[in-house]
Amino acid sequence: MKALYFDGQLRFTEIPEPKLRENEALIRVRYAGICNTDLEIFKGYMGFNGVPGHEFVGEVVEAPDKGLIGKRVVGEINIACGKCDMCLSGHRKHCRNIRTLGINNWDGAFAEYLKLPIENLHPVPNSIDDIEAVFVEPLAAAVQVLEQVNFRPTDRVAVVGDGKLGLLISLVLKARNIDHILIGKHPSRAKDIVKGIPLAFPDRIQELSGQIDIAVEATGNSQGFALAVNIVKPTGTIVLKSTYASGSTFDFSPVVVKELNVIGSRCGSFKPAIGFLEKKLVPVKSMVSAVYPFEEAIDAFSATPGALKVLLRF
Amino acid sequence: MKALYFDGQLRFTEIPEPKLRENEALIRVRYAGICNTDLEIFKGYMGFNGVPGHEFVGEVVEAPDKGLIGKRVVGEINIACGKCDMCLSGHRKHCRNIRTLGINNWDGAFAEYLKLPIENLHPVPNSIDDIEAVFVEPLAAAVQVLEQVNFRPTDRVAVVGDGKLGLLISLVLKARNIDHILIGKHPSRAKDIVKGIPLAFPDRIQELSGQIDIAVEATGNSQGFALAVNIVKPTGTIVLKSTYASGSTFDFSPVVVKELNVIGSRCGSFKPAIGFLEKKLVPVKSMVSAVYPFEEAIDAFSATPGALKVLLRF
Repeated sequence: MKALYFDGQLRFTEIPEPKLRENEALIRVRYAGICNTDLEIFKGYMGFNGVPGHEFVGEVVEAPDKGLIGKRVVGEINIACGKCDMCLSGHRKHCRNIRTLGINNWDGAFAEYLKLPIENLHPVPNSIDDIEAVFVEPLAAAVQVLEQVNFRPTDRVAVVGDGKLGLLISLVLKARNIDHILIGKHPSRAKDIVKGIPLAFPDRIQELSGQIDIAVEATGNSQGFALAVNIVKPTGTIVLKSTYASGSTFDFSPVVVKELNVIGSRCGSFKPAIGFLEKKLVPVKSMVSAVYPFEEAIDAFSATPGALKVLLRF
Repeated sequence: MKALYFDGQLRFTEIPEPKLRENEALIRVRYAGICNTDLEIFKGYMGFNGVPGHEFVGEVVEAPDKGLIGKRVVGEINIACGKCDMCLSGHRKHCRNIRTLGINNWDGAFAEYLKLPIENLHPVPNSIDDIEAVFVEPLAAAVQVLEQVNFRPTDRVAVVGDGKLGLLISLVLKARNIDHILIGKHPSRAKDIVKGIPLAFPDRIQELSGQIDIAVEATGNSQGFALAVNIVKPTGTIVLKSTYASGSTFDFSPVVVKELNVIGSRCGSFKPAIGFLEKKLVPVKSMVSAVYPFEEAIDAFSATPGALKVLLRF
């Protein structure tokens, strides 16, 4: 099959189709999304060698349960052992022996076919089209914020960062009618995508200083973290949604002095994200910048920095 | 009165006794403790100019309530306005207009007399002697950890750092019979002071990796933070107990990837700390390295780095 392969260098190549083991399904990829994590992988993140790509919608072509064949599916990206203490205590995504689709020791979605354990698969309802379905994975990461933090009606809330993840989080909060402010650098994005959310661009930051109860940090850089620390009230909460480059410099004193609560937040469950899409609560399609044929994936990666969601069509 | 004064340089000087305003008491200092924060102040921390010192026991010599006069007292160090949103929502130590004894805009305990609002004062029961009483302030900071985090009986707990604060936290956990490991660099301290607590010096760190539910970070340096991040389980908790030098370098990615909960923790209430001392639950005197007469304070500061608690006697 045709696949994009990364081993320090990224290239198209022909590799064998994935071989199924017990309880695994073979999936023909229909669309795949490009995530900033993919670009990080191309710079060496996780030391990953193999087929990248972890946002996809596809069609089951082979599975132990014949009822699955032909079904349109999305797939949870973490492959858990099911046997370690973390798995047995209900934290499968923190499995001690974890593998992650297209990120860690498991070939991903930038190929004609991928395989996943059937327990990772979620059928996509007919009311969700392919392009919406590709958003299930990043949307689940945004919904995870609701899973970890109680947004009380009296809380003042800010999302820091208007990249893909920040916008998705803002859309999820909006879907819950949770009032919040979006802080970013792209007024037009915020206007077009998260219509009606008050925006605080750098010139309004000063008036927010020490006023926010919950800040969701989605920039992934130390300036974003510093801004979040500045705007939260003493005893406030910061949710860290994006990974930070190793060796970033942070001034941590305010976390102690202000007695902040900093909560790391990663992947989320697919089921509630599918629910949001089914109910048409999150207009994810407004975030699609471009759709490229798989053959032009290299161009698509070049187009990704600065863009919103770039998709590959197979 | 004789006082130590800092304005970029530290020196003994004669200054007027503090002038009382409404609801304030004048206190003759009996003992004062030297905290690492004092040493930081001498390096410019908080840009403080004035009389440093915030750990003390003294005797009330003047007060609006005559019943207070002659009473032995300790004093909460944060002076709140009582009027701002933080004060009115019950977070007086996070007052928007806060002043802090010997740290921020309020002369401190390295002088013959200090003043404090009477609401900050706590009479010292007879069963607590002067030297124990000086520990109320740092002990309250250690007890604050119990106020913020629930140590479940099934949790594996570690205290990172065997400096003054780390040892106090370890002693407080021990007083609650909360099993834990103390990680530090001074086997003898741990042996003499926190008798019976399992110790994990650098050579045992590897086996703790990813095994700890709650790590209390009390080193105040980025290596201590990195160690805490390493030993906690996914979804675990890190309590940050000490302030970090500005511009410290942290690798923050694991906080997100492991979905950790990082909780900043600062000063605590005096009442429970006095209770611990009254019940003789925390043998704080074992932590006294030296007692200097006030006149030899400069020598005492020089003796503080690397020592445990150094006290000044007035």
